[in-house]
Amino acid sequence: MTQSFSSLYLGLDLAGTVAFALSGTLAGIERELDPFGVSVLAIATALGGGVLRDVLIGAVPPAGIQNWGYLTGILAAIVMGYFWYPRIKRWFHVVLVFDAVGLSIVSVVGTQKALNYGLNPAMAALLGVMSGVGGGILRDMLTSQIPIVLQKEIYAMAALLAAAVVVSGHTFRLPAGPVSLIGAMLCFVLRILSMRYHWSLPRARAK
Amino acid sequence: MTQSFSSLYLGLDLAGTVAFALSGTLAGIERELDPFGVSVLAIATALGGGVLRDVLIGAVPPAGIQNWGYLTGILAAIVMGYFWYPRIKRWFHVVLVFDAVGLSIVSVVGTQKALNYGLNPAMAALLGVMSGVGGGILRDMLTSQIPIVLQKEIYAMAALLAAAVVVSGHTFRLPAGPVSLIGAMLCFVLRILSMRYHWSLPRARAK
Amino acid sequence: MTQSFSSLYLGLDLAGTVAFALSGTLAGIERELDPFGVSVLAIATALGGGVLRDVLIGAVPPAGIQNWGYLTGILAAIVMGYFWYPRIKRWFHVVLVFDAVGLSIVSVVGTQKALNYGLNPAMAALLGVMSGVGGGILRDMLTSQIPIVLQKEIYAMAALLAAAVVVSGHTFRLPAGPVSLIGAMLCFVLRILSMRYHWSLPRARAK
Repeated sequence: MTQSFSSLYLGLDLAGTVAFALSGTLAGIERELDPFGVSVLAIATALGGGVLRDVLIGAVPPAGIQNWGYLTGILAAIVMGYFWYPRIKRWFHVVLVFDAVGLSIVSVVGTQKALNYGLNPAMAALLGVMSGVGGGILRDMLTSQIPIVLQKEIYAMAALLAAAVVVSGHTFRLPAGPVSLIGAMLCFVLRILSMRYHWSLPRARAK
Repeated sequence: MTQSFSSLYLGLDLAGTVAFALSGTLAGIERELDPFGVSVLAIATALGGGVLRDVLIGAVPPAGIQNWGYLTGILAAIVMGYFWYPRIKRWFHVVLVFDAVGLSIVSVVGTQKALNYGLNPAMAALLGVMSGVGGGILRDMLTSQIPIVLQKEIYAMAALLAAAVVVSGHTFRLPAGPVSLIGAMLCFVLRILSMRYHWSLPRARAK
Repeated sequence: MTQSFSSLYLGLDLAGTVAFALSGTLAGIERELDPFGVSVLAIATALGGGVLRDVLIGAVPPAGIQNWGYLTGILAAIVMGYFWYPRIKRWFHVVLVFDAVGLSIVSVVGTQKALNYGLNPAMAALLGVMSGVGGGILRDMLTSQIPIVLQKEIYAMAALLAAAVVVSGHTFRLPAGPVSLIGAMLCFVLRILSMRYHWSLPRARAK
């Protein structure tokens, strides 16, 4: 995979992974888990989506497990999380901003990687969204909550926007670099705005 | 897999997948998730068991991800779910009937596919049961409940009955088509009767 | 895998799997699940970690699914669990001792297997820990609890100790048999002592 996947994407994926690891670390500290519990949560959040994607497209061992960079980045995020926690906890939105960064980057990279492995555009977009939201879902399942992605504001939809941009760019043979950047930025802006203004999708009334 | 797996089974698997997607959609609407949360739940319920089976037997990318039909069927189920919900909610057993249809078909198809991939009969039956109950387990884990399959009436046992019929037919070299049909029907009847008459297996007393 | 993995390790892995299956069975009986629910929980606890490891290193179908011994051992554990339950429930620590035996053995075997598949030492240790703690995490997620490994005493750390011993032995080319034994024993002793004296890692204060 490292050959067929440019170092630009590897770097981006690492950045997204670190952002997710930070959100997992902070979630673990908040629930008063012990340091190993926090580490398990950080690793699961950071690697969950990407590892699942790689298993599904047949790219084993998954990049997140084969490549030194990911584990190093996650360990750095755990240390940062412990160090920053007293300061960060007052601004919970800082955590959510990191989560939004991870979501934007990982959704774009996941879609691109699935396209590289020959999946058709609709499936590639689905796998991209799954890469982006999978880690957060796992984090919330491990702490025995209904995953935030299932209930809160515009989350999976922002990931889908990123994936749709990448897939459209691929279909019209536009250059992958700038298209990826635009996709990630649109996703990030939509996610941040939806948190800021509490946008949400209309729900069917259960009663 | 499409070559080695007849179009009859593909059609059956699609029907089971749509039934599961409908049960996931309705479960999501009931919990007042937003449309994207509902979609994630529907996809996870519909594809969870089959994708896990395909990953375990080494059939990647899994059929549910590679084949257009599944995603199209799931999307149709989500739309139907939203459209029907006001009418269906009064008859919750309609949902359970769809779930029983999915369980019967997917258990049979999963067992057959595992046999086709060369697994021995006991393991093929186990993977068939897992295909059948996996999606429902995932649905309930995502909504932070103890999975219904672990506690309610005759559920995994119905799936095991279907798997046992398919495996027996395979061992005695009976024609796969009729055997599959009988297996699925027995599973469906057992599941429906156990719901109707509240049959359940005896439990060990915890206290 | 059976060729490249000695029968010693296969025997050890079986013993660890049975210990985990017993802990899953007892957990299921305690929650008053029906016999099939108990079986699903026992199988998930016993095979969860190892199957996930095998999927990630590309060893499919996973040993736990391909090899008759595992399923036979798990079924024996389920029967034993039902038979022993009335006597065991008074000594809950008996369950925890079985869980500690499973943790020690499976962490060592998992690390060794990942090394055999060519993963680098840090990743092999990570996969070993995951083999050891994965089944227990799945057991607790299925029963809708925050996994014990995330919050209780020294658990993942004991698994990491075992993995670190195996990886060190491999790096310095020491004989794998004795090193594995030492790793498993250290893990077991650390886990038992931490339960006996309620050792735990310091936590960051959430408030």
